[in-house]
Amino acid sequence: MRKSYLLGVLLGAAGLLLAGAPPDAGLQRVRQYRQRHEHELLAEYLRLLAIPNVAADSAGLRQTAATIADMMRRRGLSGVRLLAAPTPGVPPAVFGEVRVPGATRTLVFYAHYDGQPVNPAQWAPGLSPFGPALASGSLAQGGQLLPLPAAGTVLNPEWRLYARGSSDDKAGVMAILAGYQALAQSGGRPTANLKFFFEGEEERGSPHLAETLRRHRDALRADLWIICDGPVHQSGRKQVVFGARGDVNVGLTVYGATRPLHSGHYGNWAPNPAMELAQLLASMKDSTGRVTIAGFYDDVVPLSAAEQEAVRRVPPVEDALRQELGFARADGAGESLVALLTQPSLNINGLRSANVGAQAANVIPTTAEAVLDLRLVLGNDYQRQVAKVVRHIQRQGFFVTAAAPTATERARYPRIVRVTPETGYNAQRTALELPVARSVVRAVQATVAQPVVLLPTSGGSLPLYVFQQELGTVTLTVPVANYDNNQHAENENIRLGNLWDGIETMAALMTMK
Amino acid sequence: MRKSYLLGVLLGAAGLLLAGAPPDAGLQRVRQYRQRHEHELLAEYLRLLAIPNVAADSAGLRQTAATIADMMRRRGLSGVRLLAAPTPGVPPAVFGEVRVPGATRTLVFYAHYDGQPVNPAQWAPGLSPFGPALASGSLAQGGQLLPLPAAGTVLNPEWRLYARGSSDDKAGVMAILAGYQALAQSGGRPTANLKFFFEGEEERGSPHLAETLRRHRDALRADLWIICDGPVHQSGRKQVVFGARGDVNVGLTVYGATRPLHSGHYGNWAPNPAMELAQLLASMKDSTGRVTIAGFYDDVVPLSAAEQEAVRRVPPVEDALRQELGFARADGAGESLVALLTQPSLNINGLRSANVGAQAANVIPTTAEAVLDLRLVLGNDYQRQVAKVVRHIQRQGFFVTAAAPTATERARYPRIVRVTPETGYNAQRTALELPVARSVVRAVQATVAQPVVLLPTSGGSLPLYVFQQELGTVTLTVPVANYDNNQHAENENIRLGNLWDGIETMAALMTMK
Repeated sequence: MRKSYLLGVLLGAAGLLLAGAPPDAGLQRVRQYRQRHEHELLAEYLRLLAIPNVAADSAGLRQTAATIADMMRRRGLSGVRLLAAPTPGVPPAVFGEVRVPGATRTLVFYAHYDGQPVNPAQWAPGLSPFGPALASGSLAQGGQLLPLPAAGTVLNPEWRLYARGSSDDKAGVMAILAGYQALAQSGGRPTANLKFFFEGEEERGSPHLAETLRRHRDALRADLWIICDGPVHQSGRKQVVFGARGDVNVGLTVYGATRPLHSGHYGNWAPNPAMELAQLLASMKDSTGRVTIAGFYDDVVPLSAAEQEAVRRVPPVEDALRQELGFARADGAGESLVALLTQPSLNINGLRSANVGAQAANVIPTTAEAVLDLRLVLGNDYQRQVAKVVRHIQRQGFFVTAAAPTATERARYPRIVRVTPETGYNAQRTALELPVARSVVRAVQATVAQPVVLLPTSGGSLPLYVFQQELGTVTLTVPVANYDNNQHAENENIRLGNLWDGIETMAALMTMK
Repeated sequence: MRKSYLLGVLLGAAGLLLAGAPPDAGLQRVRQYRQRHEHELLAEYLRLLAIPNVAADSAGLRQTAATIADMMRRRGLSGVRLLAAPTPGVPPAVFGEVRVPGATRTLVFYAHYDGQPVNPAQWAPGLSPFGPALASGSLAQGGQLLPLPAAGTVLNPEWRLYARGSSDDKAGVMAILAGYQALAQSGGRPTANLKFFFEGEEERGSPHLAETLRRHRDALRADLWIICDGPVHQSGRKQVVFGARGDVNVGLTVYGATRPLHSGHYGNWAPNPAMELAQLLASMKDSTGRVTIAGFYDDVVPLSAAEQEAVRRVPPVEDALRQELGFARADGAGESLVALLTQPSLNINGLRSANVGAQAANVIPTTAEAVLDLRLVLGNDYQRQVAKVVRHIQRQGFFVTAAAPTATERARYPRIVRVTPETGYNAQRTALELPVARSVVRAVQATVAQPVVLLPTSGGSLPLYVFQQELGTVTLTVPVANYDNNQHAENENIRLGNLWDGIETMAALMTMK
């Protein structure tokens, strides 16, 4: 197509012009500042990582928010405060700003300080989610735990910091605040008014973000929200991400007998909920991983010509990734990773029925549970997507209930599943052609020689639709973490070099033209 | 069939003649002894239940064995000792005997003192596996926890004792030893030489039983082994069980990427081992619960005419059980529970992949595990049965390995499952027509008015084949526990009345003609 060809030439030309340009003097001073202060930045980050930040620990979240507010005050930000949601008990957002006389543009820098739930037993020996540890590289690739370095030693950018939130997304908080510090302390001056907004409920699906934005609309007015979350491209290149998939989780619990039964005395006769769950889940995907639920892909808004072209330009990483991740064949019948991420998905996050391993016993379980994660793209509505799943489950012969089944329901329906959808949200995409988007790409490109990857949408999710809906503001995502960071799992980590690069990226955005 | 009709008449006539007969004077004295000493018997049983008896706790198993040996010595048994297996570290069997001058028959009473693994977190509030607790009835049916009764109060036979092993199978140990005590202390005299053999590895599949029997063959010579394990019939009637299914467990671990992946950034592309496991398990059974693995039912030796007739005479319990257990439709396309238990089975004991509930995270798991339990009937060989499962898995496109996959295997095979069969054993059945079997049935029938249920095979498993193979001795199983005892699961319990009835059953067997 001629149109996409032209856009490709434009995007490519921008890349060629900018790639390889040496950092300007301001960015060089930012780097020197970071190099001189990396030990104290590391120490500050270790203190932040040691504070528990999971949803189940509200005291830990409050302490995290208070610590971040202190970090902002120490950097001289004005108006530092906690923005509470109208609903009591919600972890507050942390706000601060830098007013720049004469600036005509206002940017909000967003990150979130809460982390995914943790199961400490699953972390590697020597690691614990909130006992941050340093390693000589990725532990999965042979890295070894290190003592904290003595003052004065140069920190190796290949070192990793292990802790929950080290990448997702305390790294965003740290890169933004250290980026501003390095800029201000090295004589730089922001080209826009800067606001900082650090959320505390992102990993729960941001259930109170909309009401928080609404309540503090005046303070949060801006031309652009820059979201610092997620990983850079797997090729190691920096990337600018123009959207995110939506997300909704759905819990499934299949019910068998009301008490666990001896698998010998009742096996062949009493129904097994683990088998019923397996059969139900198996009915949802074919052998290539394509979802077989009726209408699952129907609402998808196709990519624009520019987005298609950007997808084609993403460096191929599949073969290297498969090798690193240790599997022989990807789902998706040969489509590229980035193309597959522009489609809705259905993932099994976890399974549980009775016990396995040393605790396994010869029983017919009473229940079997699964958690599904549905990712959504532009055009999907999360409630409509859940409804498709529910209809599919009913077509497999299940009675669907929102609560534990009553005795009457148990007596009536041979197959029973409790379906518990969580709060979700829809996808969002910002057009590649917007002028402010081009400013952002130029600013990020100015920090590196390699062409920046432009991703029409992240595979991961952020509640970006909320900013559009509540504030009328577009968003762009500029991530800093390494892609192999184990975010959302045990042994989460960040590569130090990514944190340092992120500081430069954030400083560049604060001075973008 | 004429033959089966005649056998039916014989079995039926035996039932009619015996059912309703009042207990003889000796059994009445046994009952009175138990009634006068039930508080001290309960106290002794509570002490036994408080000792951990799981395979993972070898010190607990040693203490259990030593305590049982003490219980035997206090009852005046001779030759009390621990029978070690040649393999070091194996929990010993506990042995003792009563030599009866002039007796021409020798009986061995068998029970096992080890219990199934425990997950204390799954037990109901107020319960713990080794903190035995008394309740006014089944907690699942509205029973309430009770303080220990004051001396002198009559113990309600509907009360339950909750602890791991309370039914399976410390109850067997207790019923046998208290049965002998009540008989001996109330002036009764055994009609046979009695030997007692309490095993400590039954729940692990009795991997060292054969070598123990072999090593102590002379001490264990007998005309019949009476196995006291498992539950009485669901109708509440006592039963004599002529065989047991064999059993083998098979662990399955399906492998995905080597590290957990963010379900957004990789969902649709990285293969999900939980989905692969679900699809694999779903392929093993149809919607009626019939196993679809090729050849699964091929080796089964049909029931004899007498066994078929016995199956037909088992009181129907299916409707009442379904109601109590809270499900609308059983597997097995309408066949009776007892008929289904004469077929081999495949049960999912447990499933696990990543996390569900509060620990669930948006990840693509690295592995998904299941434990299968295969029950075997006469004609099946446990290794041949496992081989059928393995061939089926291979036909689903999986590479089957016995160890964690190597990097080369990961790079080569799209679907990989580690299959880890445990030690298993085959089924055994004793013919209904044997004279010693008829003596046993008569003795048990003498203790109750209701006809005793004759079961050709238990659904559950015991390594009965070993006694035939190593000692050339037949076995009959005479259980004591209530059927709703949660054996092999959390909240295991025994109804006190079943323990008291079991004492009388064991005393009757010790005086059988």
